[in-house]
Amino acid sequence: QSSVTLYGVADMAVGKTNKAGLGLANDKFQAIASNTLNNGTSRFGFKGVEDLGGGLKAGFNFEGGLSLADGSGNKSGGQLFSRAANMSLMGGFGEIRGGRTLTTSFYSIASWELTGTANYSVVANQFGFAGAGPRDSGVVMYNSPNFSGFSFSASTILKGNAVYGTAADPKGKYDLSATYANGPIVASFAYNKVQDGNKGYALGGKYNFGPAAVAASIQKSQTNSGTILAKGYTLGVSGNVGAVGLTFDYARDSEYKDSDYLLEAKYPLSKRTFAYAVYMRDGKGKQPEAVNGYSLGLRHNF
Amino acid sequence: QSSVTLYGVADMAVGKTNKAGLGLANDKFQAIASNTLNNGTSRFGFKGVEDLGGGLKAGFNFEGGLSLADGSGNKSGGQLFSRAANMSLMGGFGEIRGGRTLTTSFYSIASWELTGTANYSVVANQFGFAGAGPRDSGVVMYNSPNFSGFSFSASTILKGNAVYGTAADPKGKYDLSATYANGPIVASFAYNKVQDGNKGYALGGKYNFGPAAVAASIQKSQTNSGTILAKGYTLGVSGNVGAVGLTFDYARDSEYKDSDYLLEAKYPLSKRTFAYAVYMRDGKGKQPEAVNGYSLGLRHNF
Amino acid sequence: QSSVTLYGVADMAVGKTNKAGLGLANDKFQAIASNTLNNGTSRFGFKGVEDLGGGLKAGFNFEGGLSLADGSGNKSGGQLFSRAANMSLMGGFGEIRGGRTLTTSFYSIASWELTGTANYSVVANQFGFAGAGPRDSGVVMYNSPNFSGFSFSASTILKGNAVYGTAADPKGKYDLSATYANGPIVASFAYNKVQDGNKGYALGGKYNFGPAAVAASIQKSQTNSGTILAKGYTLGVSGNVGAVGLTFDYARDSEYKDSDYLLEAKYPLSKRTFAYAVYMRDGKGKQPEAVNGYSLGLRHNF
Repeated sequence: QSSVTLYGVADMAVGKTNKAGLGLANDKFQAIASNTLNNGTSRFGFKGVEDLGGGLKAGFNFEGGLSLADGSGNKSGGQLFSRAANMSLMGGFGEIRGGRTLTTSFYSIASWELTGTANYSVVANQFGFAGAGPRDSGVVMYNSPNFSGFSFSASTILKGNAVYGTAADPKGKYDLSATYANGPIVASFAYNKVQDGNKGYALGGKYNFGPAAVAASIQKSQTNSGTILAKGYTLGVSGNVGAVGLTFDYARDSEYKDSDYLLEAKYPLSKRTFAYAVYMRDGKGKQPEAVNGYSLGLRHNF
Repeated sequence: QSSVTLYGVADMAVGKTNKAGLGLANDKFQAIASNTLNNGTSRFGFKGVEDLGGGLKAGFNFEGGLSLADGSGNKSGGQLFSRAANMSLMGGFGEIRGGRTLTTSFYSIASWELTGTANYSVVANQFGFAGAGPRDSGVVMYNSPNFSGFSFSASTILKGNAVYGTAADPKGKYDLSATYANGPIVASFAYNKVQDGNKGYALGGKYNFGPAAVAASIQKSQTNSGTILAKGYTLGVSGNVGAVGLTFDYARDSEYKDSDYLLEAKYPLSKRTFAYAVYMRDGKGKQPEAVNGYSLGLRHNF
Repeated sequence: QSSVTLYGVADMAVGKTNKAGLGLANDKFQAIASNTLNNGTSRFGFKGVEDLGGGLKAGFNFEGGLSLADGSGNKSGGQLFSRAANMSLMGGFGEIRGGRTLTTSFYSIASWELTGTANYSVVANQFGFAGAGPRDSGVVMYNSPNFSGFSFSASTILKGNAVYGTAADPKGKYDLSATYANGPIVASFAYNKVQDGNKGYALGGKYNFGPAAVAASIQKSQTNSGTILAKGYTLGVSGNVGAVGLTFDYARDSEYKDSDYLLEAKYPLSKRTFAYAVYMRDGKGKQPEAVNGYSLGLRHNF
């Protein structure tokens, strides 16, 4: 009986941008890996779940990112296992997780976002995950069980861990979400706040018509003093043309008059492997000029 | 037939100290990982043993440490596989091992120490492992077979590897132990010395009464010029109350008038997973003021 | 059905050189790991191949190097997965590979080199791999299928990846080979060139007589302005005496009047494990004085 699963992702593309940007240092045609124009960041991970009896389970997950461009590790946060380093107790009460993990707000956005929170997601590129990054260190998280489609999540970062603030003056953080998922509909609200620091929210949803799905959200994040960091909405549609999955996603920051959009085509080669083509535009507003780019890539999950 | 086993540990706790110390940067309640108040350092490893025929076996072990606080790697020595990077030839003659490994003195102390050389072991925190760290690089080790309960180990670090001393003036090291383990009794003596450098010894033992066990040791380490680094004794008792394993351990450095002690409770959730609660006090003497702390944690072996 | 294989190598030796050199910092007897006098660099890797149907397959390979001397990682190029970080599409058309990989020129030399491109290969130590290193980042590679013993490989590094040149003025690279392998004979030609940079070629072959094999090559590499970096030939013979495999290899750079040679003995302990003894001499010419050394080692593949 195996007590650990080795898994990962290999993702590589070729493409270019019209100028340096979208993570690329120049505007030349190039191999692209673990970057904005990839579907995902290449990774390796170890995970396992042990049944403790009485409905209780223990689980863990260590996950590190790497680049197929040069073999470098420490992606997605600068540490060997920056993508995940956590353990969980699970039972009828839900899940208590501790360590470095994707955030409560991340999971909220992921529940309705149309690209599967791809690296090139314009929702995430425009608004982050309710204004914050996808992961935090030193998290203590609670995920509720499913109550007839309704679930919630609450996380905190203990002040003593000094993940935010300074060593001399550490700050805590909390992160909350409520999600309803039932049949064709998903709706989720996320809110997170750093003590004396940034706060943000996102209210989003998705409706699945069968042949197609639409998703939309409203988002806002600001500093502690009230300066708007991002404010606006997203709107997307997704559907299949034959075997090809197509997605158009649009993210508008009305505060900064900044429009990002994305056209994505995915062609499945197997259940674990697909080819993708993407055109992405990151509008001006938060940067002096708009930049656009495309890529053609391959992602293999193992 | 699998030729390699992937294994590891996930260990995380919450707790606090009365002031900065015991590895914590402040006195606030916090998540604690791969630190003094954890049972163990989280880790991942690869190991295997191949039967070469004729009673001969070849084995290897690569092991790296990580922190569940932030996903950082390179624990237990600053390198990717600082916890273990070695290979072995084993046969009727015993084992010859080469590489980075736990030391001969470590295994001697581990044979009788009551917490399983937990990170919070006061024996190790007061006296190290016969005055030295738990691991060395560039080791060539010989472990004897068991002769009616008696075994010994001898290690050397070849001078050319410059693990001790400087590149221009490298120093060798040797490390010796003799252990008797039979039925309820374990006794072990360890001695190690760096050429023109520190030396230390530890003589310890454990007696298992059935419901309880007691362990004791005398220890001394000093510099090449004779300055005492640590000198004293340890005394501990361990037993079960229902399913809960309790340990009290005490380590006294009489030279520095420094007393460390520990109260540990362990509750098994399965053969591979347990919860632990610990209170630890690190006395003054080697530091200006005593510091104490507690933690409540979960360890999962996979 | 497993979708990923965990594999690796553990390799460690003891030995010495007559002066600092061959990767060793001093002339003292020492443990040697992931260095010139080892058969190979210790490593761990993850790889897998997925059948996509219709004759198409997807594969990936992540591989990192480590040292058994101190547990350090990031060998063979300074990154976590410097040894390999790539993915492939394979079919009747051959293989298209992208990422960090052994080069087209490396595989050409490896097809006829007698030590299995051991770390102590004098062919590689004298001439590199057609004048270049064994691996490149940002590669897009095509490997042809086998046409009655004939195959070819072509690789490029896209200019935008700036693997060569500077970020402001990136340079591309291409790498070509043609190989004929049929029964006892292997012959291969490799040529690679960095845009506005170094270029090199190697033409080598091996003939297997049954009890013995001979290999020979001619090699040349130079800078863009025509300065010779290396120019000469190699000649080697390999055979079995009982269970022991013996190799003598000689690499002469006639431009620098530099002769390197090697005596290697390998004794198999199993299909996956062997002991080796090697004497290697790196002649003067490219360095002020010759250096020689020997080692006795053990390599275990898992």
